[in-house]
Amino acid sequence: MPSVANPLRLGDLAAELGREVEGDGDFLVRGVAGLGDATATELSFARDGLSDEVAATAAGALIAAPGMDVGGRPVIRSANPKLDFARVLTRLMADASPAAGICSGAMVSPGADVDSSASIGPGVVVAEGCRVGARTVMHANVTLYAGVSVGADCVLHSGVVLREGTTLGDRVLLQPGAVIGGDGFGYVHAEDGALEKVPQVGCVAIEDDVEIGANAAIDRAALGETRIRRGAKIDNLVQIGHNCDVGEGAVVIAQSGLSGSTVVGRGAMIMAQAGSAGHLRIGERAFVGARAGLHKDVADGGRVWGAPQMEEHRWHKVVAALSRLPDALRRLRVVERKLGLRGPRDDAEGSGEQG
Amino acid sequence: MPSVANPLRLGDLAAELGREVEGDGDFLVRGVAGLGDATATELSFARDGLSDEVAATAAGALIAAPGMDVGGRPVIRSANPKLDFARVLTRLMADASPAAGICSGAMVSPGADVDSSASIGPGVVVAEGCRVGARTVMHANVTLYAGVSVGADCVLHSGVVLREGTTLGDRVLLQPGAVIGGDGFGYVHAEDGALEKVPQVGCVAIEDDVEIGANAAIDRAALGETRIRRGAKIDNLVQIGHNCDVGEGAVVIAQSGLSGSTVVGRGAMIMAQAGSAGHLRIGERAFVGARAGLHKDVADGGRVWGAPQMEEHRWHKVVAALSRLPDALRRLRVVERKLGLRGPRDDAEGSGEQG
Amino acid sequence: MPSVANPLRLGDLAAELGREVEGDGDFLVRGVAGLGDATATELSFARDGLSDEVAATAAGALIAAPGMDVGGRPVIRSANPKLDFARVLTRLMADASPAAGICSGAMVSPGADVDSSASIGPGVVVAEGCRVGARTVMHANVTLYAGVSVGADCVLHSGVVLREGTTLGDRVLLQPGAVIGGDGFGYVHAEDGALEKVPQVGCVAIEDDVEIGANAAIDRAALGETRIRRGAKIDNLVQIGHNCDVGEGAVVIAQSGLSGSTVVGRGAMIMAQAGSAGHLRIGERAFVGARAGLHKDVADGGRVWGAPQMEEHRWHKVVAALSRLPDALRRLRVVERKLGLRGPRDDAEGSGEQG
Repeated sequence: MPSVANPLRLGDLAAELGREVEGDGDFLVRGVAGLGDATATELSFARDGLSDEVAATAAGALIAAPGMDVGGRPVIRSANPKLDFARVLTRLMADASPAAGICSGAMVSPGADVDSSASIGPGVVVAEGCRVGARTVMHANVTLYAGVSVGADCVLHSGVVLREGTTLGDRVLLQPGAVIGGDGFGYVHAEDGALEKVPQVGCVAIEDDVEIGANAAIDRAALGETRIRRGAKIDNLVQIGHNCDVGEGAVVIAQSGLSGSTVVGRGAMIMAQAGSAGHLRIGERAFVGARAGLHKDVADGGRVWGAPQMEEHRWHKVVAALSRLPDALRRLRVVERKLGLRGPRDDAEGSGEQG
Repeated sequence: MPSVANPLRLGDLAAELGREVEGDGDFLVRGVAGLGDATATELSFARDGLSDEVAATAAGALIAAPGMDVGGRPVIRSANPKLDFARVLTRLMADASPAAGICSGAMVSPGADVDSSASIGPGVVVAEGCRVGARTVMHANVTLYAGVSVGADCVLHSGVVLREGTTLGDRVLLQPGAVIGGDGFGYVHAEDGALEKVPQVGCVAIEDDVEIGANAAIDRAALGETRIRRGAKIDNLVQIGHNCDVGEGAVVIAQSGLSGSTVVGRGAMIMAQAGSAGHLRIGERAFVGARAGLHKDVADGGRVWGAPQMEEHRWHKVVAALSRLPDALRRLRVVERKLGLRGPRDDAEGSGEQG
Repeated sequence: MPSVANPLRLGDLAAELGREVEGDGDFLVRGVAGLGDATATELSFARDGLSDEVAATAAGALIAAPGMDVGGRPVIRSANPKLDFARVLTRLMADASPAAGICSGAMVSPGADVDSSASIGPGVVVAEGCRVGARTVMHANVTLYAGVSVGADCVLHSGVVLREGTTLGDRVLLQPGAVIGGDGFGYVHAEDGALEKVPQVGCVAIEDDVEIGANAAIDRAALGETRIRRGAKIDNLVQIGHNCDVGEGAVVIAQSGLSGSTVVGRGAMIMAQAGSAGHLRIGERAFVGARAGLHKDVADGGRVWGAPQMEEHRWHKVVAALSRLPDALRRLRVVERKLGLRGPRDDAEGSGEQG
């Protein structure tokens, strides 16, 4: 992180966090860094189990759990150092927001309603009927089609495209290149066997506090809506098909894909490069392991891995058994020979199993 | 879908479709929706097997198969309700096309040939030597490099990039962020072992009626061309390597990837998150299951699953057998003990298999 | 490839390559093509083992290994025909660079330092504090956030986004739509269980001679940096998580993904659609097979396949054994019957295994 423009007193940061300082509350925080990189004017934070790194760090001040030995440095004592460190970063970055106003290089339709505190960068296109809320930032070369509604305090990074009728709540964060509202993938066979497009006339609704990753694609519904609920976090290069419903606080990690009409329950966690067939329900607080391929529902609180999916405990057993399979085939041949069930010709055929 | 600007008589829609109306042909269609969402002024459609939903719908009119009980509502009788519903949507959306002309915020080279009926949005860049056909729509912030040829009635959504020499036929639809003609991935080891780029000087040719999904990437050929043939449908985030040839009407579902020089036969279907090694041939009307990983050809009409791929019938058997593998290892140990082939030490080693 | 604007003498090309011509050194190269497409005025190249294709080609001249029969055509003799052909292409394409200067449609901050030999296309946005080196080309609609540094002789294709603080070395090539420096995916649970963002305040550093594919996403570090080292080649739609370190000359093929803090050793090769869990080390010159899913480190020079990963030799054995598993289960039942370990009811249960 670049150094902080206006250094802050450690005591003031602690007060904002509702935490106690131990040591010099007048320590001036001029920057923040990880334990290994921090210097004498910077603040870092200590996770449990990192006592060697804490002893070795050059950081001038720390956020650390009560009781942890911090070598006498000034310290903010916190029951959750990582959370408080995140909040310090958020506090320090707030100064870096771009200025309000519409850049001269932007193209905003006269029929759009853009809050005067919003910041609209160069090359941004806002079509007619759009609404953009207070303090929302749209970086260069963002495109809003007609009738898009963006709430307050959103950040839309460069290259983001919101197609017609998309709605965003407040505090939505879209990484560069995310595409919201592209057509769902729907075709029907015509009389001559050719594929004919089913126009996708639904929309996408994204609720408050959602984040969507770089170059992700969230398709509009065929009819009705695709919905990403409050606080869901969607990583880079994820594919969300038409009419999906992603639950509150659900997490979908990079390069995963949900086929059309998948319902993801509240708080579910889908690890990287997983996929689901269409029309499935992934239960509340369910866990889908990396690279899993779902072909049936996952129960509330269920944990699955593999493709095709298996319950977690079973999958671990199958994976362990699989690694012993070549040896088991050899042992099976020994058994068969002992029982006279296997002749020389069988052994010749089976020779590929040996070794 | 937004309500229809100019309501249409049900009888007129039926006549356009070449179908018969049963009941009030003067019913005015003011909107369209799914069975569950439709209101009394809207048209919906009934699939087979949805008789309960049809009985419960508030839709004012329907498209339904001959003989289906529609509760006395006005109805367009159709041998293919989904197809006719798609055609109604297409008909209703035709009114929503943007106006013809070049937006003042676009940058069109004087050396480009843009049909006067085309619609060129703000921030669009059309380089020299490009040709854009009649009624083609290019939404905001599309980029055409030099010498690109786009046919008639195409729609290019925001953020689409067509690199030099790309050709599109008629009625091609490109979702936002699709990249056509990026360099293929080709390197050669130089004398010192470093990778040296093989310039990719071929191009991409996309034929009539192709659709390509959001943030998909279709690479230009090393030499010669990458070709996507008439009517092929390619979903979001798909990767097509250099010199691939995707056949007429082939379908490639989201997040799949074809390595260089893959040939996909006419009408083949590649499900989501599948991949193929390079220089393979996937046969006509072949089916490649979701998440399959191909390392060898697929025959015409072949059906494969798994990674590495197996013939569909065999794959189902292997998957079923795999789930029984832990138990089979236990049974094998019982057999070995009975035959005196397994001592106490073996059992200790094998204890991880139990449970 | 389009034909060459200024035809070149074969002898002059050979001299530039440091190779010998056999036959007519005055042959004028008017274009280049593959063996199957080349015409009498074009140059092609011959790999080993393609003698039939060489005999049949219409190419007027060739690059070929010493001693290969080229049917009397003029030929540049080369110990590495593919490498020399690549260099001829590079030589011929050098003439096609766009003109230096800042296009009138670009938006370059007065506080940016752009070399006068750089070429800045329409719709490009260069924010304050950026630096752009000599002869670098930025195609239409590229976006540079504040404080980005781009070296000399780079090419940034349309739609590329470089977020704040990104640094590129010299000769870096970014395909269209690549996003560099999007936020890493980092959250912490707040007191109420909701996910709270950990601001990602690190950056991305890309060294000399790196290429990054279309619509790839390289995330900025949480703290510190994500680094792509000299000469690494990253393909389309690849995901690189925060704080990864990709080694010199490493190769990451299309649609692969590295979770946060993965370290990839020098010269490692990661094939398509593979993935790694976070905080792993993939050794120098290691090989990760297509679609592998890594959950633990790979040794220097190691070769792994599968998900979960296995050593290459073992994986081949397991895959071979797996295809015999249904038959092995049948054989195990035969053994059990012979030993009286299996009754009729067991057979009924097991009937699904047959056939």
